[in-house]
Amino acid sequence: MAADRARQRQGAGPLLMSLGAVELRDRLASGALSALELTEACIARIEAREHEVGAWAWHDPEFARAQARQLDAHRASGKPIGPLHGLPVGVKDVIDTARIPTENGCAVDAGRVPLRDAFVVERLRQAGAVILGKTVSTELAFMDPSATRNPHNPAHTPGGSSAGSAAAVADGMVPLALGTQTGGSVIRPASFCGVTGYKPTFGAIPRRGVLLQSQSLDTVGVFAGDPAGAALLAEVLFGHDEADSATTLAPPPRLLETTLSAPPLLPVLAFLRPPGWDIAEPQLRAAFDELCAALGDQVFEVELPRQFDSAASHRRCINLAEMARNFHRYGRDGAALLGPSTRAALAEGDDIRARDYLAALDWAKVLHAGLAEVFERCDAILCPAAPGPAPEGLGSTGDPIFNGLWTLMGTPAVTVPILTAENGLPMGVQLVGARGNDARLLRTARWLHAWADQ
Amino acid sequence: MAADRARQRQGAGPLLMSLGAVELRDRLASGALSALELTEACIARIEAREHEVGAWAWHDPEFARAQARQLDAHRASGKPIGPLHGLPVGVKDVIDTARIPTENGCAVDAGRVPLRDAFVVERLRQAGAVILGKTVSTELAFMDPSATRNPHNPAHTPGGSSAGSAAAVADGMVPLALGTQTGGSVIRPASFCGVTGYKPTFGAIPRRGVLLQSQSLDTVGVFAGDPAGAALLAEVLFGHDEADSATTLAPPPRLLETTLSAPPLLPVLAFLRPPGWDIAEPQLRAAFDELCAALGDQVFEVELPRQFDSAASHRRCINLAEMARNFHRYGRDGAALLGPSTRAALAEGDDIRARDYLAALDWAKVLHAGLAEVFERCDAILCPAAPGPAPEGLGSTGDPIFNGLWTLMGTPAVTVPILTAENGLPMGVQLVGARGNDARLLRTARWLHAWADQ
Repeated sequence: MAADRARQRQGAGPLLMSLGAVELRDRLASGALSALELTEACIARIEAREHEVGAWAWHDPEFARAQARQLDAHRASGKPIGPLHGLPVGVKDVIDTARIPTENGCAVDAGRVPLRDAFVVERLRQAGAVILGKTVSTELAFMDPSATRNPHNPAHTPGGSSAGSAAAVADGMVPLALGTQTGGSVIRPASFCGVTGYKPTFGAIPRRGVLLQSQSLDTVGVFAGDPAGAALLAEVLFGHDEADSATTLAPPPRLLETTLSAPPLLPVLAFLRPPGWDIAEPQLRAAFDELCAALGDQVFEVELPRQFDSAASHRRCINLAEMARNFHRYGRDGAALLGPSTRAALAEGDDIRARDYLAALDWAKVLHAGLAEVFERCDAILCPAAPGPAPEGLGSTGDPIFNGLWTLMGTPAVTVPILTAENGLPMGVQLVGARGNDARLLRTARWLHAWADQ
Repeated sequence: MAADRARQRQGAGPLLMSLGAVELRDRLASGALSALELTEACIARIEAREHEVGAWAWHDPEFARAQARQLDAHRASGKPIGPLHGLPVGVKDVIDTARIPTENGCAVDAGRVPLRDAFVVERLRQAGAVILGKTVSTELAFMDPSATRNPHNPAHTPGGSSAGSAAAVADGMVPLALGTQTGGSVIRPASFCGVTGYKPTFGAIPRRGVLLQSQSLDTVGVFAGDPAGAALLAEVLFGHDEADSATTLAPPPRLLETTLSAPPLLPVLAFLRPPGWDIAEPQLRAAFDELCAALGDQVFEVELPRQFDSAASHRRCINLAEMARNFHRYGRDGAALLGPSTRAALAEGDDIRARDYLAALDWAKVLHAGLAEVFERCDAILCPAAPGPAPEGLGSTGDPIFNGLWTLMGTPAVTVPILTAENGLPMGVQLVGARGNDARLLRTARWLHAWADQ
């Protein structure tokens, strides 16, 4: 497996980009690498590959260079540098960037330029990151596919909705990127593109300035080459903002420090065949059998109670009801410009009754309580990130069946690219932690990633 | 006005009960009055008057005496006493009391006996209160009237839904009582019965163990003879409970200390003719003209923007949608036992669309922002508590039109009984404060109460 991945990485980007984000950060901090050098490497890669991948909704090389030069000058002046000093980051196009187009992947929003940065973009700038550009989102972060292609094979979907962020990191165009997940929009494209995707605990990252699709589900997530890179980026995004009532005041997490530390004991994983297992591809199921066998005593099997079978329909009910409210103006003013999935979802959401919506929210609480017992016995739940590798064709972004449950539960999830399908495409292994246990989850993910590399 | 009220109070209860709760607390603390003496006075009053008023859903004199004796023994032992030591309290029948029937005013719940006290009942017991009994609620704290009568005139409604609590305090059966408000269920009956009713800031008092009708609106409130009594009782109820996500960790409020203090400057009140003013009785409108004239420079008029005209329908949408979810089992298993208003509301709530419900919640936030400017300029908003005195007849609990807006806004509200209608029935004057400014509001209410007594 290890050789496969090394080859993939090398095939997917220039040598500099095969380094992890933490290694890049260290070189930038020491001065061994300048922000401009790294930014130029990203720009060169985008110029070479963007015509095939189509990961960027907005990218201006001069804007990126100007930031990099400023950061290099800042460092040269001897001032303290930020935790992401000089690291280029791609920002999903549903996340507001001041004075930079943010079109939400939607024709209705063509030409939209926000006046204010989203909370997470403010944090990126404070941390010294280079905003490399805006990455392609599916329309309004929903199911209608974007034009982005899978960098491993352009005939395959990169997944969605954070298609551009996943593809750009996978292709070595940028070491880090931001995405969002309401169903499976971080974990699925990360799995399809062969990178690490991390969706934190619901409420950990404030969503001010992020397109509001579904307030009970929307979660900002990150893409990186490995779990440590995801921890590095996510750590600067955690926080509290009054505008997002899902967030709470809490001390900053020590995501990176914990992720880089060795687990005190060998991690124990609970392998779980989630609802929908029956539609997973045989090769995916075989790969998990093999993985569990190789992990031996470190893995035990758990079964979810039958109530979890309805989780997908509860999540969908919440998503479509809230979307019908939040996207009302898109349907009213721009229906002709919308894709068929968005239009159908708005029509379906319009008819959802408040009583059923509230019942679905209550169900989520009941189901979550049912997970507590599992998390007492393991470091993380182990399950697939998707039913197989990225499907062929660009007509669908693939099935989020193995992601929605964890979005509904608000539990942190991370996918690591340690499996390879028969056609050479990557397949992710998803780990899920207890709410609030993000650092432990990322540490476990880093352990699994390294274990698979042995 | 002062003479009127003194006569009312004397007519409405024994001499002991004409004392304020704070004075009673002081006598109990000093030993000048025993818990048993005060409890016996309450029991005697109930025995004399309950056949006419019908305020109690459950009352066992021996149970009350046993608590009082225990409290007297506790005090005699020299141990420290609680802030409500020896004070009898009536508890609305929608609030759970362990091993004491709690039937939610509903035939479907006949014989229901909770195993656990509600948060607020735990707090009452810790504070040394005597649980005198359960007071009558309308069915499920909604609009179908109860059998309770107005103690000032048994041909008139006491209001609802906290009918028994308001009537019992007004009749001198108990110095303090708990109620709940989802529309106007504390302020309206307090106004009709001529007592002080206080609905704190939404989220200030945890609702664990209180009948869940509408999670976005339900608020625990209190009844007392005067604002200081309301502050005394409410202060022990404020807090945080994980089971109620509307509550937050905050230092205990100094409600009583602030309420008993003199305002640093003469209070300034913003007189507001709320939506529905047109249907207020002419005598009510005239009384407010007179009141404002008497207050002179201390009052200025404000007008609410037109958007507030839709507040009542937004509140109703939220209430009925959440009620349809939360009372689903009552409609399913016991529809034949339910009153016509409850049944109609459940049917209407069932058909509310999630999109409209979510829009109503969003509207509440917008409207609330519109109040901020008013609260910057005054100590409290001044407005009527109800469109007039308690209407004749027991077929309706009266119109909550002047209460729902403040429930929707989550702002603290208090009504003080300082007006009298042509037929001798009391009419309340409602003061509304900014969210979280409960202590200042109660201080202003105490000032107004005293000012009217001059």
